[in-house]
Amino acid sequence: MDRLTALPHAYKLARRDARSTRTVVQLPNGAGFGGDVVAICAGPCSVESREQIEATAQAVARRGANVLRGGAFKPRTSPYAFQGMGRDALKLLRDAADRFGMAVVTEVLDPRDVELVAKYADMLQIGARNMQNFSLLREVGEAGKPVLLKRGLSATIEEWLMAAEYLLVAGNNEIVLCERGVRSFDNATRNLLDIAAVPLLKSLSHLPVIVDPSHGTGVAKLVAPMALAAVAAGADGLLIEVHPDPPTAASDGPQSLTFEQFDALMGQVDTVARALGRRVPAAVAA
Amino acid sequence: MDRLTALPHAYKLARRDARSTRTVVQLPNGAGFGGDVVAICAGPCSVESREQIEATAQAVARRGANVLRGGAFKPRTSPYAFQGMGRDALKLLRDAADRFGMAVVTEVLDPRDVELVAKYADMLQIGARNMQNFSLLREVGEAGKPVLLKRGLSATIEEWLMAAEYLLVAGNNEIVLCERGVRSFDNATRNLLDIAAVPLLKSLSHLPVIVDPSHGTGVAKLVAPMALAAVAAGADGLLIEVHPDPPTAASDGPQSLTFEQFDALMGQVDTVARALGRRVPAAVAA
Amino acid sequence: MDRLTALPHAYKLARRDARSTRTVVQLPNGAGFGGDVVAICAGPCSVESREQIEATAQAVARRGANVLRGGAFKPRTSPYAFQGMGRDALKLLRDAADRFGMAVVTEVLDPRDVELVAKYADMLQIGARNMQNFSLLREVGEAGKPVLLKRGLSATIEEWLMAAEYLLVAGNNEIVLCERGVRSFDNATRNLLDIAAVPLLKSLSHLPVIVDPSHGTGVAKLVAPMALAAVAAGADGLLIEVHPDPPTAASDGPQSLTFEQFDALMGQVDTVARALGRRVPAAVAA
Amino acid sequence: MDRLTALPHAYKLARRDARSTRTVVQLPNGAGFGGDVVAICAGPCSVESREQIEATAQAVARRGANVLRGGAFKPRTSPYAFQGMGRDALKLLRDAADRFGMAVVTEVLDPRDVELVAKYADMLQIGARNMQNFSLLREVGEAGKPVLLKRGLSATIEEWLMAAEYLLVAGNNEIVLCERGVRSFDNATRNLLDIAAVPLLKSLSHLPVIVDPSHGTGVAKLVAPMALAAVAAGADGLLIEVHPDPPTAASDGPQSLTFEQFDALMGQVDTVARALGRRVPAAVAA
Repeated sequence: MDRLTALPHAYKLARRDARSTRTVVQLPNGAGFGGDVVAICAGPCSVESREQIEATAQAVARRGANVLRGGAFKPRTSPYAFQGMGRDALKLLRDAADRFGMAVVTEVLDPRDVELVAKYADMLQIGARNMQNFSLLREVGEAGKPVLLKRGLSATIEEWLMAAEYLLVAGNNEIVLCERGVRSFDNATRNLLDIAAVPLLKSLSHLPVIVDPSHGTGVAKLVAPMALAAVAAGADGLLIEVHPDPPTAASDGPQSLTFEQFDALMGQVDTVARALGRRVPAAVAA
Repeated sequence: MDRLTALPHAYKLARRDARSTRTVVQLPNGAGFGGDVVAICAGPCSVESREQIEATAQAVARRGANVLRGGAFKPRTSPYAFQGMGRDALKLLRDAADRFGMAVVTEVLDPRDVELVAKYADMLQIGARNMQNFSLLREVGEAGKPVLLKRGLSATIEEWLMAAEYLLVAGNNEIVLCERGVRSFDNATRNLLDIAAVPLLKSLSHLPVIVDPSHGTGVAKLVAPMALAAVAAGADGLLIEVHPDPPTAASDGPQSLTFEQFDALMGQVDTVARALGRRVPAAVAA
Repeated sequence: MDRLTALPHAYKLARRDARSTRTVVQLPNGAGFGGDVVAICAGPCSVESREQIEATAQAVARRGANVLRGGAFKPRTSPYAFQGMGRDALKLLRDAADRFGMAVVTEVLDPRDVELVAKYADMLQIGARNMQNFSLLREVGEAGKPVLLKRGLSATIEEWLMAAEYLLVAGNNEIVLCERGVRSFDNATRNLLDIAAVPLLKSLSHLPVIVDPSHGTGVAKLVAPMALAAVAAGADGLLIEVHPDPPTAASDGPQSLTFEQFDALMGQVDTVARALGRRVPAAVAA
Repeated sequence: MDRLTALPHAYKLARRDARSTRTVVQLPNGAGFGGDVVAICAGPCSVESREQIEATAQAVARRGANVLRGGAFKPRTSPYAFQGMGRDALKLLRDAADRFGMAVVTEVLDPRDVELVAKYADMLQIGARNMQNFSLLREVGEAGKPVLLKRGLSATIEEWLMAAEYLLVAGNNEIVLCERGVRSFDNATRNLLDIAAVPLLKSLSHLPVIVDPSHGTGVAKLVAPMALAAVAAGADGLLIEVHPDPPTAASDGPQSLTFEQFDALMGQVDTVARALGRRVPAAVAA
């Protein structure tokens, strides 16, 4: 008797057998989630300036990153913390991505901002704190853009797939799930990265799954080994925070890689991916 | 050296020493949170019909409940579950409360609904899943109505007070915190009700704190002992789910009390409250 | 459908319906667990000297404590921390308890020490870290002494009752369960005290249940409200750490009460207990 | 500022800088933990018969497993569950291992059994439930045999290293840490396998680290991807449950691999290991 068959499985459209083939989510620049090429989403936690986002885009694109991430609207625990550059950041992200052949993924926090964010981004991110923000899920579900749906801070696999179901019911089939760690009793790491969620989701659902080892650990030196672990477990992509100068980052500096660290990581990821019949994207000319 | 002094305490306006006296939140019908009278919020999980909400209001009001709760917009894990009667429910809640001298508290899920809900409710509830929905917090902070801020599913005390800080920064000082249990490893109960949060919050903040033993346990037979425990620990109020016929409830039946169970509970709560120098509200004439 | 009925319930002898009446555990000095009188176990975390344990016994006995606690063999996370005074502590405990009419409860860590500890103690404590130390459970089960079985650091209710079942199967029926908090994601408190375990266990089993708010919170100022909450929820007793001078305690100082704090607490506990038809023990003459 | 530097680090002998080189634990048959060859420990959860253990040893040895695991003394949640074959199992394990050139690792539960188990085993396992059984740690620390120290059910990294410190202080330097998953709120998997513990421990300590994806997931189909993830994250070995006929296993059937599944896994593990400059052991002639 299998523990997995005892789960409620209340989702319908997200079930693996709801489709004849696994879902592959494709972005306009050719980046894909779910095929042989492991998608590489990289960039700073927050967009801070044109210089910062362009330098980062250039650095990560030349090593194969095909999706540029960067926060424009930031969900911050404190009302006194940097809340993001908003609309300005969206434009900077779009410009930087276009210049280096990348797609844009960025988070949307408010249902009233979905249209605005969708104008600039190729993929809308629903963050961990909003995984069960059902108004936002419905609005994003109708936006006609691929979605990156992060796991909630303490969401079960079942609840996570039910959140995806809200998007699917709204007619959006282009969903990528992103494991980013869950709450635990040990504060040695920021979160407990649940790598087993990757094969588990792939067993239960047809949707592609990526991993965010930056938020998943909160510690820069753990990002590389966990990125390799994710790819070895079958992840369809990675989300990596990279910053020109992590100690001065407006947010998440301790978990951000330098350009050099990112370069080294991509070499390792490609090696592990190739051992398993996959690869990282070829670098675009820059 | 005290464990509590080692916390970050990044909130400012929510700190206990930010005010010379503890906050008492007062609703138009005279219900108060933070004084000698323990506020009793009671009603069904979801508003289902005029008959259901009126019968419940009458039953709970005659035993001293002074705030009527009932869901109009429901946050449901599944898109296929009952999502609430929306605007119609708001009107039914208002009518029933007015008829029996009660105030209304109900949840708002979407920043675009704040104005609508504020038109009917005396107190806006921010649910556990939205404790870090910062757009909603900002909008509710500006609505000019008292707020019931539930603890997030796995929110730390620090994060919870930071969420309150979002409301306070927006100019809203009438905030009541509601402990409703957190995620744990044991599914014997729906959540793990953290009664220690009551004295802990009262030590750290000037805001009143109430407890929801219905969601906090998910089991009707545990509601009464946990309501008594909450009052003994110093809670300023209780939030109790009551339904005319729990087995047929549209949501949360297993944790809802019958009218008879609620009657019995109020007697016990009053006894414990009086032992500690407090009391439950006097019943309004019905 | 009740969440509780869906549990495995693999225990047999611990089930509520395995006996016609609830178990009452009686110690030689008359202290009882499970009757109308709430048992009060109090004393220092560790026995440190004759003066310390005698002064504490005298102070707590004159306010009604009827069981003296104190660690002789201490389970310490660090091999470099104070490990307890061992055999010497057992004698000091016995002498102090006898002098003030109290019973002795103390922890046994090693199956080879059961006989020794049983020679001096009236009740053998199995600590949280040893709840699933099955060799120790078997040995203690055959020792012919009442047992205080603490909940494991992250033990489910089911696992806890199964640990009690090991004792029951060995022929020992005099078991008291002690809730002492479980691991959580929030380090504001040392543990998360699960007060709902009290009515839950009483619903599932015939065994008496007490609560340890000292370990359950790790913060002296939270001990009193949580002790009251425990009694309000139906606890059959309390386990309270008390020390003549908490700041100099060899272990657990931050969660230990002074004599004055203990005095004040007993008055409050008696008030709440009497409101619910129970009471704290009458003080022995000292 | 690094989150890891803020930890207490109360261990001394386990610290990475306590030694000039990383510890490599070597067993008599040449199996090593910490070098270029990834140790492969495999076998049934419980030893059930000579036929079962010999067939399993043969099957796993021919694919490179160099350490035979199998429970003789079983820690079981229920006193009614199969408790292991005890001394007889130790002999069967020894015979089977010798016949196929393997070493033996098996769990010891009771300090009084350490000498007996050490007579048959090459490596003593301290199980998750006993990670803070300090009497057992001390006894095993003096037994003169390498130790496999599993992580406690909800042990922090700090607590785990402190448990290792108990062994080190007792004079035993041959310790291998084994991540086997921790308690979480989601029962989709039996435990939450904390792969990040591998690089984290390697950063903090000189001790080798292996991973048990069988207990870490509780689901046979998740064992292979998590084994690959562990090796990609830098694990020095794997502990894999294998059974001739999992559905009939006396314990842990749902997480045990068949011989065929184990064969396939070893090929994949070797591929990933080689991509990272390591490899699985060469198969011994059988």
